[in-house]
Amino acid sequence: MTSFSAIDIITTKRDGATLSDEAITWLFDAYMSGEVADEQMSALLMAIFFNGMAPDELRTWTERMIASGERLDLRGLSRPTVDKHSTGGVGDKISLILAPLVAACGAAVPQLSGRGLGHTGGTLDKLETIPGWRAELSNEQIRRQLESVGAVICAAGQGLAPVDRRLYALRDVTGTVESIALISSSIMSKKIAEGTGALVLDVKVGRGAFIKEPDRARELAQTMVSLGTAHGVATVAQLTSMDAPLGRAVGNALEVTESVEVLKGAGPLDVRELTLGLARIMVELVGLDVDPERKLDDGSAYDVYCRMIRAQGGDCDATLAVAKFHETIVAPRAGVVTCVDALRVGVAAWRLGAGRARKEDPVSAAAGVMCLVKVGDAVAANQPVFELHADDIEHMALGRSSIESALTVGDEPVAASPLLIERIESPRPNLL
Amino acid sequence: MTSFSAIDIITTKRDGATLSDEAITWLFDAYMSGEVADEQMSALLMAIFFNGMAPDELRTWTERMIASGERLDLRGLSRPTVDKHSTGGVGDKISLILAPLVAACGAAVPQLSGRGLGHTGGTLDKLETIPGWRAELSNEQIRRQLESVGAVICAAGQGLAPVDRRLYALRDVTGTVESIALISSSIMSKKIAEGTGALVLDVKVGRGAFIKEPDRARELAQTMVSLGTAHGVATVAQLTSMDAPLGRAVGNALEVTESVEVLKGAGPLDVRELTLGLARIMVELVGLDVDPERKLDDGSAYDVYCRMIRAQGGDCDATLAVAKFHETIVAPRAGVVTCVDALRVGVAAWRLGAGRARKEDPVSAAAGVMCLVKVGDAVAANQPVFELHADDIEHMALGRSSIESALTVGDEPVAASPLLIERIESPRPNLL
Repeated sequence: MTSFSAIDIITTKRDGATLSDEAITWLFDAYMSGEVADEQMSALLMAIFFNGMAPDELRTWTERMIASGERLDLRGLSRPTVDKHSTGGVGDKISLILAPLVAACGAAVPQLSGRGLGHTGGTLDKLETIPGWRAELSNEQIRRQLESVGAVICAAGQGLAPVDRRLYALRDVTGTVESIALISSSIMSKKIAEGTGALVLDVKVGRGAFIKEPDRARELAQTMVSLGTAHGVATVAQLTSMDAPLGRAVGNALEVTESVEVLKGAGPLDVRELTLGLARIMVELVGLDVDPERKLDDGSAYDVYCRMIRAQGGDCDATLAVAKFHETIVAPRAGVVTCVDALRVGVAAWRLGAGRARKEDPVSAAAGVMCLVKVGDAVAANQPVFELHADDIEHMALGRSSIESALTVGDEPVAASPLLIERIESPRPNLL
Repeated sequence: MTSFSAIDIITTKRDGATLSDEAITWLFDAYMSGEVADEQMSALLMAIFFNGMAPDELRTWTERMIASGERLDLRGLSRPTVDKHSTGGVGDKISLILAPLVAACGAAVPQLSGRGLGHTGGTLDKLETIPGWRAELSNEQIRRQLESVGAVICAAGQGLAPVDRRLYALRDVTGTVESIALISSSIMSKKIAEGTGALVLDVKVGRGAFIKEPDRARELAQTMVSLGTAHGVATVAQLTSMDAPLGRAVGNALEVTESVEVLKGAGPLDVRELTLGLARIMVELVGLDVDPERKLDDGSAYDVYCRMIRAQGGDCDATLAVAKFHETIVAPRAGVVTCVDALRVGVAAWRLGAGRARKEDPVSAAAGVMCLVKVGDAVAANQPVFELHADDIEHMALGRSSIESALTVGDEPVAASPLLIERIESPRPNLL
């Protein structure tokens, strides 16, 4: 095998040229064996942040990330497989409802997930508030549960795309997260390695999302659709608004409770709307002729949810943790709610204890924020608008200072921005 | 003290904003204490490579590098101090002649130097081919020798700008060497910490230099002049051509021998011209009314050289190492020499054993290249043009393959490019 030098690879990328397939193959091998050091890889990641990647280069980069580990084989199940990935939002509990709902429609949903970092929560952190529930499953358990229940939400194994695991941790501390090439290859390498046959991508855009500009969100969506298609995964992306929190609950146990409400046919309308919108795409992608709305309203989805939780040791009737301290924030004046800032609410929930700053930090089950009003609602002066939940007064103080100015009250009527912005199913023209 | 986060500092620079004085102060402290990791610093260095630094930011960056260590105090000597720094070239033995020459003119020259890395040689590597000569001196020894002899060439102590020492090693392996902000702060932090009162910068430009374009070399020169002036060091830069090797000898002992020839009033004319050009600036900077040419021709400079070598334990009459293997390369055809490529000759000398790839590698005293012709010379077919010197046949083979196409022969008469290109003594207008 040809030998390369880390410095040559870094300066090639730095100077705007393209890495060859051989260079990328050598790089990942050398990185995993320790020959290329973290400080060299982080310099390369920053160069990629600035110069991006050419379509072929990104395809190879992603493919070599997948090839660095095992790839789940989900062929031979009696149901078609389809998964969903969200780029991360505030109050985004959609997976908890969507996986059992789409399973109730007849598909198998292998939702391999992560824990939260920063102001957006993690699906596993939410489900871990259910007594007894286990995130860790073997590949064989995943397969069996997909066959018997149709839905699995569990931790992605260490064996999937191990290069991505190291790059992700490195990007997190080196200011190289917000790169379309790096985000898309990270997400898609894991999803493709997970073995799903079809995939819907919920690409968040707005105040509380990692990507604030629609054009960049669209570029990310097209890039991921291209990568999925190139690897034989039927992929559609849905741009969705993340200006305001989804639903009312932001926090781990609070979101589980809200998800169960939606699964029982009630709950906030925006959560229901987004879940059904994504479910319809997933059902369509695998060619099932079922209306998800009926499966939500007739209790089938909730039934699958309970079986899914129980299959992983959880007690879905258990009472969830309740915070020791509660505090109410009121509207500063009468008027119309013009903004509930998802980023500020997300940061407040995080500081109240619901999130972690470093990946080894514990999270609080009970802490979080309940948003009592939505954009467009009329409010009276001193009407309660947020409810803060915390386990101790220190966290409460942090959360209280973060929630300041999360709500804006105006005088004119205002409509909330549409939740489902745009469906993207064509790859970038130059990528395939 | 305010606390910062490495990630915030990296993303600030990445997004094109300016680091505050407090952020830079925190960063270097945290880096030296281990709180900021090498992989974070290398991502920051790459962001600086792309976005550069604002004038004030670079001034603070340099100042905090100096403040990270000790600063030599050379005040109170009976002679004015003046030093020279070269950005690195092939066959550049000027320091060996210049330091004793300027001392012979009445100044004190505290030439704290480094070892070579890559295709350019290091002054210490050259002098270490002299039996007995020691590169390591205490600060007290430096002061005493400056007073008694007037010239010191020695290793820069570990205590000067220790942040730069770590950044330099990191840049070397992360593809972040060629940044004007990083080059200028690295050079100037060490030179200012060394305590010299005046400084001439030999900024190389051309085929064998780190910077190939005159405009970038000019920008680097102006930036360094600005930094020197801001720190009270009278600083002038001289842009000089590094298209062809300086003199005829490229290699450690070979260059010492050639330097002694020049010190005795003979030697290649280009070496003599550049040495005198820089010496005149240095003498002028410290206000001495002496003609360096006279001090070279009357033997005073050679006399100081011998005293300088002896003061550091060296035997200046000793026979230097001679390589075991010699090989002659001949001109492919008759004509006029149109190019002796400094980079290719430098790489050949390096591969013959004169240079090191990693800083812990040893170097050969005797290996190197003798260039027997200059640009503009007429050559006959099969006339010897290079002489290769190596300690073993493996190195000889490496050098032989590297010297290929270092020489170009044409048909039209051609003049060598002027050696002294431009004198720069004004800081960047926006920097001061």
